[in-house]
Amino acid sequence: MTVVVGYVPTPEGEAALDIGIEEARLRGARLVVVDSHRSGEELDARTAGAADAELARLRERLQDAGVEHDVRQLVRGFEPAEDLISIAEANEAELIVIGLRRRSPVGKLILGSNAQRILLDARCPVLAVKAEG
Amino acid sequence: MTVVVGYVPTPEGEAALDIGIEEARLRGARLVVVDSHRSGEELDARTAGAADAELARLRERLQDAGVEHDVRQLVRGFEPAEDLISIAEANEAELIVIGLRRRSPVGKLILGSNAQRILLDARCPVLAVKAEG
Repeated sequence: MTVVVGYVPTPEGEAALDIGIEEARLRGARLVVVDSHRSGEELDARTAGAADAELARLRERLQDAGVEHDVRQLVRGFEPAEDLISIAEANEAELIVIGLRRRSPVGKLILGSNAQRILLDARCPVLAVKAEG
Repeated sequence: MTVVVGYVPTPEGEAALDIGIEEARLRGARLVVVDSHRSGEELDARTAGAADAELARLRERLQDAGVEHDVRQLVRGFEPAEDLISIAEANEAELIVIGLRRRSPVGKLILGSNAQRILLDARCPVLAVKAEG
């Protein structure tokens, strides 16, 4: 049994990770955290260093949480939605967790195209979470 | 602890109900099933009869599932998204489950406005499920 989380270092990405850890515990499932970047071409020395630091923090947090886990750091040309869906399918995931940006109090936000693709195209149920507050 | 399900008598609505029952069991939570109709004005004798039959089927299924439950059949002027969100908030729901129509193999479907509103405006995580196949 596997829960897949789409992680990005933003408040909604952290919220997705928190809930993903809870759901993996609840289900006694393994957690696969997908840290997906849009394009490898943007990767210079500075962003590579930041990505390494991010990965180290992520691994520490997962270790502390005590769930069986696996981190996939993807830096490649595909869209993040495709990465997440293909990893979920390869792992026969029972659940995907993603973070959504909450509607702003003034403007009317619609869901981003990546979130819509994951919600509509994933074979398993998708749990969408927002950042607190 | 409460799980709220948005129910409609369609394949994706049935899928949402199935998953809602599973999630309520997993969490030891009460299930609130919201059977929401867009407008009370359409309600004539025939649709009222169909709604009663639907409600009877729904109650039987929930009884068989053995989860603590409550069915709210709403026929009023609000949009279904508002009904679902306000019931989730009134019950301090920890999860909302909704059904999504899957993208057709030919055309590129986007998410309906009701689903988008629930996903973005609900305070708790929202689990989105598609019908099988």
